[in-house]
Amino acid sequence: MDEAVTGAEALVRAATRRGVRVCFANPGTTEMPLVAALDRVPGVRAVLGLHENVCTGAADGYARIAGHAAMTVLHLGPGLANGLANLHNARRANTPLVNVIGDHASWHLPFDAPLTSDITALATTVGCVRTVRDRAEIGAVTQGAIDDAHRMLGVSTLIVPADFQQEQAAQPPAPEQDSETESRAGRIRVGSDHIKDVAARLREAGPRATLLLGGNGLSRLGQEAAGRIAASLGTVLFGETYPARAERGGGLPNIDRLPYFPEQAVAALDRGEVVVAGAEDPVAYFGYAGLPSLLAQPGSLIRLARPHEDAEEALLELADLLGAGAARIPAPAAMAEAPAEGDALTGRTVGQVVAACLPEGAIVSVEGGTCGYPFYSASASAPAHTVLTNTGGAIGQGLPCALGAAIAAPDRPVIALQSDGSGLYTAQALWSMRRENANVTVLIAANHTYNVLRTELERHGNTDFGPQAAALTSLAEPRIDWVALATGFGVSAERAGTVAQLRTALTDAVASGGPHLIEMAL
Amino acid sequence: MDEAVTGAEALVRAATRRGVRVCFANPGTTEMPLVAALDRVPGVRAVLGLHENVCTGAADGYARIAGHAAMTVLHLGPGLANGLANLHNARRANTPLVNVIGDHASWHLPFDAPLTSDITALATTVGCVRTVRDRAEIGAVTQGAIDDAHRMLGVSTLIVPADFQQEQAAQPPAPEQDSETESRAGRIRVGSDHIKDVAARLREAGPRATLLLGGNGLSRLGQEAAGRIAASLGTVLFGETYPARAERGGGLPNIDRLPYFPEQAVAALDRGEVVVAGAEDPVAYFGYAGLPSLLAQPGSLIRLARPHEDAEEALLELADLLGAGAARIPAPAAMAEAPAEGDALTGRTVGQVVAACLPEGAIVSVEGGTCGYPFYSASASAPAHTVLTNTGGAIGQGLPCALGAAIAAPDRPVIALQSDGSGLYTAQALWSMRRENANVTVLIAANHTYNVLRTELERHGNTDFGPQAAALTSLAEPRIDWVALATGFGVSAERAGTVAQLRTALTDAVASGGPHLIEMAL
Repeated sequence: MDEAVTGAEALVRAATRRGVRVCFANPGTTEMPLVAALDRVPGVRAVLGLHENVCTGAADGYARIAGHAAMTVLHLGPGLANGLANLHNARRANTPLVNVIGDHASWHLPFDAPLTSDITALATTVGCVRTVRDRAEIGAVTQGAIDDAHRMLGVSTLIVPADFQQEQAAQPPAPEQDSETESRAGRIRVGSDHIKDVAARLREAGPRATLLLGGNGLSRLGQEAAGRIAASLGTVLFGETYPARAERGGGLPNIDRLPYFPEQAVAALDRGEVVVAGAEDPVAYFGYAGLPSLLAQPGSLIRLARPHEDAEEALLELADLLGAGAARIPAPAAMAEAPAEGDALTGRTVGQVVAACLPEGAIVSVEGGTCGYPFYSASASAPAHTVLTNTGGAIGQGLPCALGAAIAAPDRPVIALQSDGSGLYTAQALWSMRRENANVTVLIAANHTYNVLRTELERHGNTDFGPQAAALTSLAEPRIDWVALATGFGVSAERAGTVAQLRTALTDAVASGGPHLIEMAL
Repeated sequence: MDEAVTGAEALVRAATRRGVRVCFANPGTTEMPLVAALDRVPGVRAVLGLHENVCTGAADGYARIAGHAAMTVLHLGPGLANGLANLHNARRANTPLVNVIGDHASWHLPFDAPLTSDITALATTVGCVRTVRDRAEIGAVTQGAIDDAHRMLGVSTLIVPADFQQEQAAQPPAPEQDSETESRAGRIRVGSDHIKDVAARLREAGPRATLLLGGNGLSRLGQEAAGRIAASLGTVLFGETYPARAERGGGLPNIDRLPYFPEQAVAALDRGEVVVAGAEDPVAYFGYAGLPSLLAQPGSLIRLARPHEDAEEALLELADLLGAGAARIPAPAAMAEAPAEGDALTGRTVGQVVAACLPEGAIVSVEGGTCGYPFYSASASAPAHTVLTNTGGAIGQGLPCALGAAIAAPDRPVIALQSDGSGLYTAQALWSMRRENANVTVLIAANHTYNVLRTELERHGNTDFGPQAAALTSLAEPRIDWVALATGFGVSAERAGTVAQLRTALTDAVASGGPHLIEMAL
């Protein structure tokens, strides 16, 4: 018989048995037994974040690359609250993720001590919740929470009162199979009859149809299958606007993202049937008077696979049913034009330089539109790489996501292509990158404005900004000095103002490994 | 008849009529009509925060000093989520505060666009919520939300769908009195019969009794009345451990804070009757096995005034009833010992230097225990000043609170006495201090550890930290360079390593005005 372990040790054992290898943590007093257990039970690497939104965003990025959940450890309700924005993004990315939240000792909770708040209400806004109610069940409830995350591809929160962490508990019950059994994220398979129906409708629609890829429909296999269908039927291909993970380059067909603004998206989808493969039904990001919320024409939508379903498999089966053979749409040609070395940095030239310098197998975390869209256009002809984007629109996602991706794939270079405004929400991620020696090159597009908001003000008919509107959309006065910020967090940094400077700095940074920041003067 | 205004303009007009003068904002697309309205309707000053928790913490600090609510403008659910931690603190401080959250256009909400989430559920965890459901009611609902905040001394959230902000609305209904009528935060008066009962019990208890002050019992008048009672009856005086606002120095009696750890707090309160005046019933901050949650002996608690009641008035009445005359407990003597100029900086020496250098009328925002407790002890003999503390324990409160206080009282010097770990959650506040030329001197106690967590680990019996526990409680590797961080945010900064250096740097910073940061090597 095993010796008794503390509840926290039982929790960590259960987590390791279900395949959890990394824990992004910002613990407090009510998680101290858990902190101690991370040393006593081997198998889970702890990564400290200086802010909880770094932890949750990193856990999201990790799982997008690793394919299974990381754990976070957050302190009570306020700690969870601090991490909610990136949990919102993880929810929209269908990312398996397990939060472990320490709560007050169960007998102390009724006294409404200062840090008491409604943790369950907060956690429910982003996913499902389990609460340990008995120290004996801690291992089983932990396994259940991890399985929840993997089964539903979503955010699962486990609330563990401090007394149950500290007290001795029985061993976690043996898993049904052997103790090495991991719980892995899995998508639901789409039924063959349904795929046959979609095939028939696609065949009938012929070149009128548009195929909108998302989820694991944006894997290499998924995109290749979609390319065969397009070559065979003339189908138009799009990827969802903000993919959790999209493979790109390395000879894949050039599948552009569905445009962000509804006018353009509606125009892109108005040819006829729209088949969604792993994407949500396309809806406008925001509602604009006079423009529809649903971007596809009424009645035109055909759902091959929903985001939690296996779109990759469904696309492969669909391509076979349609008799799509080896013919492919042509691979993207190399970039037609390269910017001159002395050119100033703009969204377009940055996108071109980054695409041109991209090492084989890179992971690119993209947050912000200024460089993000031009990069995506330019990177079609780059070597094979993976793009991660901000799925939920809660900004401050790109840097933590890059951190998590780097920890999931230490052998792959990571590039964070980051707008300055959103980067400022979670700049603390830089410190964790340095501490973990994460191989991340951070490129900050420093235009010193919330540019998207100025565009939105103009869309609302405000072209002549008053002083307060100008100030509320400006990051100047004073200008943020990103080189100093990076230095403050221990990350080496430099500035680039031209194409040549960016090319040199980026090439050097990628070659040297480890975290590095380049402030790009746009 | 007034001309029609947009919903957003009606909102701003209603806010100005109810006395709102400042808005701490981090807006997004769904708040753009509101941003435009802030220029078209004069009266509300917009202050941009780079992170929502800066906005909410600043609104808390502002109201603690100004005595009435500031507004925040936050973007959708994720924006509110980012600001929840400091809203939790505001709730625990009984601070009136009004959040305005833009939501998707009402007709767009059902489509579950990427940024859609349950805003009401989030807001309900910290206070009450009103949602605008018709563009015509926007002015009235805004006034109601502000009145909610002032009536209940708490956090009130107003959700305004973007379409109602943009569309033209009727003028807000005229307030009952004239248009200058402000809504001000007010505490409920304690009934005279109740005060008479308490007086009788206090008289009977004599020197056995302890008086625990909180809320506006910690005003100058409240403390002076408590001092008279103590001089007359021999009552022992304490302040609550984490006051929202405590006046101190300038000849006030030296009323120490109730100790943080329950062993000491229980010992402090075990003499007999405990009369709470504006404080919550004293409970342990965390539950520790073998120690009680309730810090006062069973049956010993007498409630003179709850936190939302007028403890100041009740104390004045109580002192009169008890016949407490002009006799006072002696004013604190000047500090017995001053540290030597070459001494190293420790919590104790920092507390002594800051207390000694404190200008008359200063506001001191204290977050973190390392220097916070020693400063409070030392500052009893300082000139009159105001102390603001972290009431709810959600860390990252001190710097935003200092920003808000400085905006509420531009004629008073503000000092933020800040631990490094907690400062890193909302270091972005430095940027807003610079932009607003806020007269804040930030003192960072840089010990490069989460010291409180090491203490807590030891309390759990872990004296020999494993490598992961050591890493999770350390801010070294790499060390944060606060001078570089401040520079990155545009704030001038320097380091101090000795008593003499700190004294010079602090004196110069206070004399020069404007934001300045001093990293104190502890």
